[in-house]
Formats: sequence, structure tokens, C-alpha cells
Amino acid sequence: MRVSSRGDVDPFIVMDVMEAARSLEVQGRHIIHMEVGQPGTPAPEAARQALADAMGRDPLGYTVALGLPELRAGIAQLYRRWYGVEVSPERVVVTAGSSAAFLLAFTALFEAGDKVGLGLPGYPSYRHILKALSLTAVGVPTGPETRFQPVPAQISEDLAGLIVASPGNPSGTMLGKAELAALAAHCAAQGIALISDEIYHGLHYETPAVSALEVTDEVVVINSFSKYFSMTGWRIGWMVVPDGLVRPVERLAQNMFICPPHASQIAALAALDCIPELEANRAVYAENRRLMLEGLPKAGFTRIAPPDGAFYIYADVSDLTDDSRALAADILNGAGVAVTPGLDFDPVRGHRTLRFSYARATADIAEGLARLQRFMAARG
Amino acid sequence: MRVSSRGDVDPFIVMDVMEAARSLEVQGRHIIHMEVGQPGTPAPEAARQALADAMGRDPLGYTVALGLPELRAGIAQLYRRWYGVEVSPERVVVTAGSSAAFLLAFTALFEAGDKVGLGLPGYPSYRHILKALSLTAVGVPTGPETRFQPVPAQISEDLAGLIVASPGNPSGTMLGKAELAALAAHCAAQGIALISDEIYHGLHYETPAVSALEVTDEVVVINSFSKYFSMTGWRIGWMVVPDGLVRPVERLAQNMFICPPHASQIAALAALDCIPELEANRAVYAENRRLMLEGLPKAGFTRIAPPDGAFYIYADVSDLTDDSRALAADILNGAGVAVTPGLDFDPVRGHRTLRFSYARATADIAEGLARLQRFMAARG
Repeated sequence: MRVSSRGDVDPFIVMDVMEAARSLEVQGRHIIHMEVGQPGTPAPEAARQALADAMGRDPLGYTVALGLPELRAGIAQLYRRWYGVEVSPERVVVTAGSSAAFLLAFTALFEAGDKVGLGLPGYPSYRHILKALSLTAVGVPTGPETRFQPVPAQISEDLAGLIVASPGNPSGTMLGKAELAALAAHCAAQGIALISDEIYHGLHYETPAVSALEVTDEVVVINSFSKYFSMTGWRIGWMVVPDGLVRPVERLAQNMFICPPHASQIAALAALDCIPELEANRAVYAENRRLMLEGLPKAGFTRIAPPDGAFYIYADVSDLTDDSRALAADILNGAGVAVTPGLDFDPVRGHRTLRFSYARATADIAEGLARLQRFMAARG
Repeated sequence: MRVSSRGDVDPFIVMDVMEAARSLEVQGRHIIHMEVGQPGTPAPEAARQALADAMGRDPLGYTVALGLPELRAGIAQLYRRWYGVEVSPERVVVTAGSSAAFLLAFTALFEAGDKVGLGLPGYPSYRHILKALSLTAVGVPTGPETRFQPVPAQISEDLAGLIVASPGNPSGTMLGKAELAALAAHCAAQGIALISDEIYHGLHYETPAVSALEVTDEVVVINSFSKYFSMTGWRIGWMVVPDGLVRPVERLAQNMFICPPHASQIAALAALDCIPELEANRAVYAENRRLMLEGLPKAGFTRIAPPDGAFYIYADVSDLTDDSRALAADILNGAGVAVTPGLDFDPVRGHRTLRFSYARATADIAEGLARLQRFMAARG
């Protein structure tokens, strides 16, 4: 049967790492997982309890396409709580994870053939979803001098859209309010649709992340219950869209998704109030980050981006290798630590970078750092 | 902010009907719902219990993109149970409902601008998802003489794909094995990708529906736990694809969806074994259908398609009106019965048709039919 060019997307190298780690585990090796981009914790207890209760009394059929009204209102309230920003619940669209939000945003905003800018390194699925929708991703190279974030001078007027991510994946670096405002103003002046991926909000370690909604209403903000709320597998997220985009997104959502998973909506609504449990998770990440910032340089990974948020550290390993994929394989086999080569995030320069995740238990992080230090010292 | 032409899809008229019904209910009117395309029953009890158990012991993080291996195996087994067909679990792709399956199939198979055929009347989201993906839907008019199914002579070689649905929505009519084989052979000869929507399989009342996998492996079969398994809001479905499409679909799924909802996968796996409960649901639909076939003609709806499966009856009301939307509004206001005008399913001829759903409780169906008979008799 025919296969379209849209289906011809690059495989994730991290999947190969995960598979290699799994096969070592099957052979009896103990592996520390610094490659995985998700919490090890479950959804908050009250969220799971809310669903258990609902399953006994509600058939959990389709909801309306934009999501349960009480969940939309709860998310709107989160903007008041986190940023002091008023957002009408009418502008909140509940989605099947940020993945569905990207599909909706890209189809609502762009025509086939349009060019969309994104910072490199960055989340690889941006590029691949754009390709699947017959859109053209335009990589904007970024480095430590701008905290791995694009700047207005890099954003040319032939772009139909720009995706920013703060905190970013793989860098964990954030855009300040002034930088975000400058990008938003530039996009508005050029007629470029701004999409702000805020999926790691809530996971900050010094100052909170700035939402694009603090500087403009002319933005599509994308977020999720996956990371701070520890609900990756539930596939539940949201977007906040400008007034004029609500109806087009609603019609697309009715057809493309019917509705987000009802059970996940019930759990997410309860999760919004689970502040102590979620802050306890964050305290674990904060301690992990402290250990990483102390331990990675001792292992010889000295060129690291300042990780303002999320649970990643991006390391420039050009002093160690020109082949990050081979280095990651050596580290996995030699040290028993799974890490991600940078090629997933930056096809051009990622052969000289690694991403370390610190999303798992603190004991694992400590053990992983000790292994990295021993292995890299022996490697010389 | 810009809005793309892709986002400019028709609204669902059934949504307006549902909203009008809801506002009458708010005013205290009692409404019988013959507009809704979903079971009133919840997920099977053992499915809900399986999830309640899993929530206590598993963080329910991401699964692999193609779905839990045991669920893929269970679905493969269903093909043996239902059709006596051997399907490798490797070819089974678990998806976030049939909606996600359509997004994956269309992106894996087609390039922007490709033409895809589909029978009219038909499920409206086919057209709208195609448009959202910059594809062109080509309506193939069908009528009672071919049981509302397309025939090979209607399928021109300039199509890149053809979507068939058996049992169909809104008609409930099925393709026989010979008819399906003829369409499959025609598509294979012309290089047209065949997509078979089998979402209503399991809900048949005389002979079981034929799967396209009984006549060819060169087909993308799409199915779901929504209807027979009574799990609409869980957004969990699947596709069976030819060997050569597994890897492209996997890469697209990794990027576009990451994975189907984990909780829904757990519930769906258990639902596969809930045969007595699901067959009891089917017995209710069978009785409802019997009442409908007896009662609708008495209300004056005599030109109805033979409903082989699903839970719909499609009626030609051209002897009653040229404006099915107005007739549906009259029926809602006058009889307190919500029904769907045919325009959602057939933009060209749907002004002369109505769809009646019999998915709800038998007592509601009986009451709805009595109201329809009284109202239509008084209307004259």
C-alpha cells in the first residue's frame, strides 16, 4: 500500500536508547534512567480517587469538544493563581494532551506549505507534527548566549508562525518577560502566529516561568497535565486561544477528536487542587537538580545550560566527542546509565550534545551520577 | 490572529439539535433523545474495576506508541473470535479512538491535495478531517438500491483513497462479502488505498458484519471500543494496517499522539472479555430496533433503509418535507423528541432525510415512538 511523504518522519533516537536499556535489563543489568522525559510518580491520589468515584456513578460518555465546563473554569483559575492573569474560561480548550493541542493549533492557524519557525535544540515532535500536516519547519539555531531561546532578529517575516518553549526541552532554560514580550511584539508586527509551549510550567527552581499570556492575548498557549501534574499517560492538556480562534478550534476538535478522554478530564479537575502532593514532587526534582549541577561537572560534563525549569540538563560534549550517539551508547554499556544523544533535539548540532533527565527518584540520580563519575574518569 | 482555511469546517447540525434539546430541558420539558450517537450504558463493570485496580499499583505513564502489547494481542484475538481471521498483533495499532486512527491513516497514506472518496450519506467527520489535513473529500452518492454503499463503477482512478463504512452511519446498512471484495479488488487494481471503518461491528441484528480483513490484507481497518464495547468517552480504538504501514504509522503516532490514554487501554483490555454484559447491551438495541421498525412507519416514516447494524435508522422524508432541519425542529418542539436532520451526513440530499438513533433505553424508545405517532398524526 502507498505511504505518503508525510509519514516519512525521523525515528526518535531516544526510543533506540530505551530499547537498548530494556534489553540490558532483560539480561540482568541494572540501568539508571536519565533518558526518560516523564515523572516516575503517578497522578495525584485525589485525582485517582475522583475518577474511581465517578466510574461508579457516571457513564463517562462523550463530553463537549472543548472539555468539561468546570475543568475549563479550573484551568482559567490556575492562570490567576500562577500568574495573576485573568483568562476567560471561554478561551480554554481542553485537549488530549499537548499533542492534540499542537494538532489543533497547527490546523487552525496554518495552510499546507506554510513555514513555521522553532528554536533548535527543541522538542522533536514540533518538526514531525508540522511535516505530518504538510507544513515546513524552519529551525532557528540557539545557544547558551541567548539561553537557548530565539530572538526577534532571527524571526523572518516569511514565517506564518513561531513556536517558543519556556522552560525548553532539552535545555530547561526560560524566556524572561522582556524577551517574551519582544518576541510577541515582533510576531504581532509581522503577522506571525505565536505559539507558546508552557508544558513545564510549575516546574521551576528559582523564579517562576513567565506565561505568554502575561504579555499578550494574541498567542496560542499550550500546556498539559503531564509534567507538573504528573499525568503523562492520561493524555490530558489544554490550550488558551485568542477569542477569534475559539470557534474554529471547536469545530476542528469536534471532528478531529470528538472530545478529550472523559476519565482523564475528571482526574485532571481534581489534580488542580492537589498542591501539597505536587509541590512535594517538585521538591524532589529540586534536590535532583542540585545533585546534577554538582555531580555532572565532576563527571566531566562542564558545559551545561542553566536549567531554570523542567527536569532536563543539556550538555555540550564537544570537548569529549563528535559522536554523541556513540558516547551515549558507551555510557549505557559502560556505566549502566541511559542518556539521550542530542540529535533528536537538534539534527544539525546534536552530535555534540547530550540530554540528562532528572525526573526519577533522588536515590537513582545519586547512583547515576556516581556511575557517570567512575565511568568518565576511567574513560579518561 | 490568522485562521486557516482548514479550520473553516461546517458545524455539526446535530450539535444545534442537542443544544436546543438541552435548553428545552432547562425549561422543564422532558425530551426523548433519538439524536445521540452513543450508548447510554457505561464501560463494562470489569473494565472499570480493572482500571480501579491498576490505579493503585501502576503510575500509568506513557505506553509505547502502538499501545500495550497485551491489548494489541487481545485485539488480534478478537479477529479470530469474530471473523475466524488470523491477524498478527504486530499489525494492530491502538489509537485514541477511531478519531486518532483516521488522523494517522490519512497522514500516513495521503499527500496534501489528494482526493479521497467516501459514500454520501456518511459520517461527517470524514470530510472535515480530510479538509483539516488539506485533502479533498469526493462524495459518492449512494441510495437504497445499493444499501447506501458505493459500488466499483463509482470509484474513479483519480482517487488516492476510498473510505467505506459497514454498518454505515447514518444508514446502518452493511456491505456483503462479495460487494466488499469487489470494492477491494477495484481499489487494488487502481492503486487506491482502501480504508474500512468498522466501528459498529459487533452491533448486528441478523447476520454479522463482514470485516474487510476477510477479503484482503491490503486495507486499513479502523475500529473502536466506543460502540459495541460502550466506551465512547474513553477515546480508545484501533486500526489494523498492512505490514508496510506499521513503521510509518508508529513514527507518526509517536509524534502526533505519544500514546493512547493508558487508563483507557487498561479498561479496554478488560472489556474484551466482558461478553455477557456487552451481549446484554446488544439485546437491548435489538429490541429497540424491533420497536423502531414497527413504530416509525406508523408515525409516517415509511421510507427507511434496512438497518443491518449500528443503532441508527435513516429515513427518506421527501414525502413530508423539503426542509429536514425545520421538520426536526418541529418534532423537537412539538413532540419532545430530538432527531438529527440528514444534512450532517449528506450536504446535497440531506434536506430530505432524518436520522433516528435507538441507542438509549427501550422505555425511552417506546415513549419516543408514541410521541412521534401522536405528533405526526396531528400534523397530518
